[in-house]
Amino acid sequence: MSITSNLLDPTFKTSLACVANAIRGLAMDAVQQAGSGHAGTPMGCAEIVAYLYGCFLKYNPHNTHWINRDRFILSAGHASLVQYSCLHFAGILSMEELKKFRQMNSLTPSHPQYRTTPGVEATTGLDGQGIAYGVGQAFGIKLLAARFNQAYFPIFDGKVVVLAGDGCLMEGVSHEVCSLAGHWKLDNFILVYDRNKTSLDGLVSESTSEDTRKRYEAYGWDVHEINGHDFDELHEVFSRLRQEQSKPILIIADTIIGRGAPTKAGSYLIHSEPVGQEERAQAKQNLGLSEVEFYVPKLVYDFFTQNLEANWESQWKEGFEKWKTIYPDLYSEFEKMSPNWLPEGLEKELLQIHLPNPISGRKASGCVLNYLGDRLPGLYGGSADLARSDMTHMHQHAVISSTQLTGRNIKYGVREFGMAGIAIGLSQTEMIRPFIGTFLAFSDYMLSPIRMAAMMGLPIVYQLTHDSIFIGQDGPTHQPIEQLAHLRAIPGLQVIRPADANEVEMAWLAALKYPGPTALVLSRQDLPLCSGTNQPFEEGVGRGAYIVKECSKKPDVTLIGTGSEVYLVLLVAKILEEEGYSVRVVSMPSWDLFEKQSEVYRASVLGEPSSLRVSIEAGSEMGWHKYILNGKTISLKTFGKSALPGDLREEFGFTVEKIVPLIRSHL
Amino acid sequence: MSITSNLLDPTFKTSLACVANAIRGLAMDAVQQAGSGHAGTPMGCAEIVAYLYGCFLKYNPHNTHWINRDRFILSAGHASLVQYSCLHFAGILSMEELKKFRQMNSLTPSHPQYRTTPGVEATTGLDGQGIAYGVGQAFGIKLLAARFNQAYFPIFDGKVVVLAGDGCLMEGVSHEVCSLAGHWKLDNFILVYDRNKTSLDGLVSESTSEDTRKRYEAYGWDVHEINGHDFDELHEVFSRLRQEQSKPILIIADTIIGRGAPTKAGSYLIHSEPVGQEERAQAKQNLGLSEVEFYVPKLVYDFFTQNLEANWESQWKEGFEKWKTIYPDLYSEFEKMSPNWLPEGLEKELLQIHLPNPISGRKASGCVLNYLGDRLPGLYGGSADLARSDMTHMHQHAVISSTQLTGRNIKYGVREFGMAGIAIGLSQTEMIRPFIGTFLAFSDYMLSPIRMAAMMGLPIVYQLTHDSIFIGQDGPTHQPIEQLAHLRAIPGLQVIRPADANEVEMAWLAALKYPGPTALVLSRQDLPLCSGTNQPFEEGVGRGAYIVKECSKKPDVTLIGTGSEVYLVLLVAKILEEEGYSVRVVSMPSWDLFEKQSEVYRASVLGEPSSLRVSIEAGSEMGWHKYILNGKTISLKTFGKSALPGDLREEFGFTVEKIVPLIRSHL
Repeated sequence: MSITSNLLDPTFKTSLACVANAIRGLAMDAVQQAGSGHAGTPMGCAEIVAYLYGCFLKYNPHNTHWINRDRFILSAGHASLVQYSCLHFAGILSMEELKKFRQMNSLTPSHPQYRTTPGVEATTGLDGQGIAYGVGQAFGIKLLAARFNQAYFPIFDGKVVVLAGDGCLMEGVSHEVCSLAGHWKLDNFILVYDRNKTSLDGLVSESTSEDTRKRYEAYGWDVHEINGHDFDELHEVFSRLRQEQSKPILIIADTIIGRGAPTKAGSYLIHSEPVGQEERAQAKQNLGLSEVEFYVPKLVYDFFTQNLEANWESQWKEGFEKWKTIYPDLYSEFEKMSPNWLPEGLEKELLQIHLPNPISGRKASGCVLNYLGDRLPGLYGGSADLARSDMTHMHQHAVISSTQLTGRNIKYGVREFGMAGIAIGLSQTEMIRPFIGTFLAFSDYMLSPIRMAAMMGLPIVYQLTHDSIFIGQDGPTHQPIEQLAHLRAIPGLQVIRPADANEVEMAWLAALKYPGPTALVLSRQDLPLCSGTNQPFEEGVGRGAYIVKECSKKPDVTLIGTGSEVYLVLLVAKILEEEGYSVRVVSMPSWDLFEKQSEVYRASVLGEPSSLRVSIEAGSEMGWHKYILNGKTISLKTFGKSALPGDLREEFGFTVEKIVPLIRSHL
Repeated sequence: MSITSNLLDPTFKTSLACVANAIRGLAMDAVQQAGSGHAGTPMGCAEIVAYLYGCFLKYNPHNTHWINRDRFILSAGHASLVQYSCLHFAGILSMEELKKFRQMNSLTPSHPQYRTTPGVEATTGLDGQGIAYGVGQAFGIKLLAARFNQAYFPIFDGKVVVLAGDGCLMEGVSHEVCSLAGHWKLDNFILVYDRNKTSLDGLVSESTSEDTRKRYEAYGWDVHEINGHDFDELHEVFSRLRQEQSKPILIIADTIIGRGAPTKAGSYLIHSEPVGQEERAQAKQNLGLSEVEFYVPKLVYDFFTQNLEANWESQWKEGFEKWKTIYPDLYSEFEKMSPNWLPEGLEKELLQIHLPNPISGRKASGCVLNYLGDRLPGLYGGSADLARSDMTHMHQHAVISSTQLTGRNIKYGVREFGMAGIAIGLSQTEMIRPFIGTFLAFSDYMLSPIRMAAMMGLPIVYQLTHDSIFIGQDGPTHQPIEQLAHLRAIPGLQVIRPADANEVEMAWLAALKYPGPTALVLSRQDLPLCSGTNQPFEEGVGRGAYIVKECSKKPDVTLIGTGSEVYLVLLVAKILEEEGYSVRVVSMPSWDLFEKQSEVYRASVLGEPSSLRVSIEAGSEMGWHKYILNGKTISLKTFGKSALPGDLREEFGFTVEKIVPLIRSHL
């Protein structure tokens, strides 16, 4: 797969054209067979992707996990068939799977899925987000390169190519991450904009008239405009990029949606429906394709076999082995960045961190993070311009900039969605372990990429601070009410709201042990240490919920609190006990961890269903009745107010004086 | 308040300078008194806002609701004191309230709040969103102008001015809505960018290096760069805008954060903390201000009294009264656009719409919408590029474009967050009743503006279609699981998931009757009519939950379904009854409406707590236990899959064959 010349060999070009048309045939057939799906976009961007897989990308079809591969992300995920076709030609995906497009448990779901299909670098299909993941991956590669590359040993020098459609560029997230890519001068990031001027509802010109070239130049990018069906033009741009790229590149490739279809090409009518029997037959004739369904000319397979002979990985591996020997310390650090590595005895270390009492959740978390910054070389992170407040700065490390790539702190600016999308890409390097921070109320801005991290099972830590109305005066826009419920409802996201410094330490451990994403929900205000929280992981936070104060008799009431409310609950319990009631107090930092416990354990914590259970949490009651049944929730039903924390406690009934009589009235 | 000349009168300018410094004094004092808050930004943009309130904006301090007022939105909501100060000078807000900054139930909360403080046009404080509301308001004014203005009678010709900070322009939503503003050529929209180059975490240059002028020119805007402390430069730009504006304008105003503070001016250290006693004293001295707290020079009050004498509204009203007489038909339409107007007997009309059986939720809703398009002149709406699929197009009306402002369909492009923000602005015209559509799974992208609509109590309708895994092949990225729970958790948002065409009709009625926002959650797939749903509003959907199939004896089990699952539940009930069980079936389209019913009614629907209750809904179980207690949820605990709907039913257990034995095992 030689790309030394700026001129494409004519035979090579003929082969690529054949590959592109084979993609078109497969796209039409697969959509027809599935009964639904998108053939139009794959037919439009067939040349681009044929060129990428057939000529530009460095990859190893026998090991799609090679860490220095180039990465291709299809942000326009609905065009999945264009990628599946190429993965098939390269021998990565079988024809059998291609024929099961959009069928249960196939390797060819509607939109590309990370860890479902080999060679797929991210789950896409949500417009714009693929660009964010790509920026994250490219940024990650540069951070790893800065850390590990040595003269003669470019351990990391892969490019990241994202193919995006009109919709991707309209989405706000494209602004956030492309602005950052320009700021960071990512010279390994290539965004190909498949400009087919057509979207589901018609012409893009009906809703957009921006000058995309100018917009991206404003971000500090290089921009090229080409005919996306012309291999020479593609080659002219791409062949220079290995040597000459100094910043992110936007390649605006004009294409015709559904190219090859005799009547529907260029029309939004081909966007999201099968092409139709007759149209398909005629298209195949026009394209010189066999009528046979799922037919791939032998030339296509031969082309890939011949050109993929150059095994990039084995060349790289030679250098990598030498590098390991010459730089053993670097290699040891490299190994410590493997996904599951954790220092031995970390639990004990964490329990020994000395934290002041009282201390806010955010500060306690910041202290733990600073401790971990020394212990975990893969920890990188930052905040959407709130590091001074959400305590996500690792003081022993520098801030990363385009000229300072050896730092570990990332300044994302005020870009929550972009930050969460980039964190996904960083995590997909499978070496960097990203954490990001913002206020809990602002998690609304990044709910979709949090969902996507959960769907992809990526171990990202979200440090979400200012976790209740008790932030006080900043008022209702900044006061979370329903956000805990939002996060808890996302399948696969581990949500932990620690009660005090002890629980914060173990919450971090839970995050590091979990293979998926974790949201740490932390207070702004100081929290005193609660009696009963000084527990080893497996007896405390690791259980999800545990008894922090037991009573000698069968409890009259079980009080369940989380986060900053646990201390309040203990005060309430004290009064009720003085009045002669038998009261159990449960701290429940994580519903998710609790759900993983045995039924016996869960019952032993919650007590008999017939006894009164009360949940106390400064947020929405949503979901609590699973644990309290027909008990009582002390929660918030409206938005908050701008006022002093003490006044808010009074107003919303979160004082001992208001809670005690309420519970008493149920006993 | 004359603005005829491009040159400011020197005395006038001196007065404005005095106003700006008075703002600085009040900002420092109010933050010091509150103990927290932002003085730096108000001190930085004091000249800009003094100029706007003192010279540019047309408003009536005695009637802040005058419909043809200019509107000012402080997107950088943390700078609220700059607005509160001017509202005070204009006689709209008392000094007493100003002194209660950030105190419980004051008119001066931390961030400006819509309907809390007179003269505040939107609740802001979430970066970027104020721009979206402003674009929506400006767009709305243009739509109303196109509809009602006649030669000599400019009923609507107000300008909308938004003041935004660095953070606002970093946020993705700024891209979405500013691109649309350019596309629509909004010649009444003015965005002032208070470029102080400083954010909470430090210098903006640490996270951004984009060329803002170029970016906005790419959107098709006019851009001016000025010194934001120079009244002549402000006047030079603004004085032309009444006559010469032909597109949206960005005014980049360079300012110094905390200007006037001797040591902290220009530093991020003044961003979000009190200025400090000594620094404040010195600043006041520098600015020629009295040491007395909350001191306002008499000159400032006099200036506003004199200049606000020109009563814009009374001049306008004269024309308006004439217009009413000359164009009675237009005026009658105008009246029908008042916020609470509904055609009499609408319920009966809606019940009589003939809809096919079966019909999908989305199509049924589309039919109702098309019916309402004739009956409600205020109904405007559109989709984020999914109108062909989410059925949000009103066929009798044109699509709006920059040259066709009399249409009623809006093409938002692929911009969910922007769309939801613009809908807020449209709604804030208090004449336009906006609806917007997208897939339920994509509501994640716009959760924050949905929350904000709920917080502001705006009657926006969200038509959220493709409401479960049963969309089928599009796969997990497009299949909502937790989204219903997200929406239900937002305080004040009315969520309705209708079971069939009957319930869709009444769901729309519920939406139109509700003064806040409503999410209609609708199926992609066809739904057969369910027996028992043919109910008048007050007996059916209006109750939130109601019995669609009663049993003669005390029920052994109460089955509760929503949306597409109600028909399935009825089939399950039939089998169980054949087996001899006594089964009640409840349709529960809206938790919110149910919560508003009497305890007696609620108990009568749900049955005795001791009897088995089962909820059946193709989504997260989150929240259901409030109604089923220790009963059983049939729900989804993981993300979906790309497969045929029938296969998904099998895989996830949503078939009669799988549900019946499950319930039987609990009986």
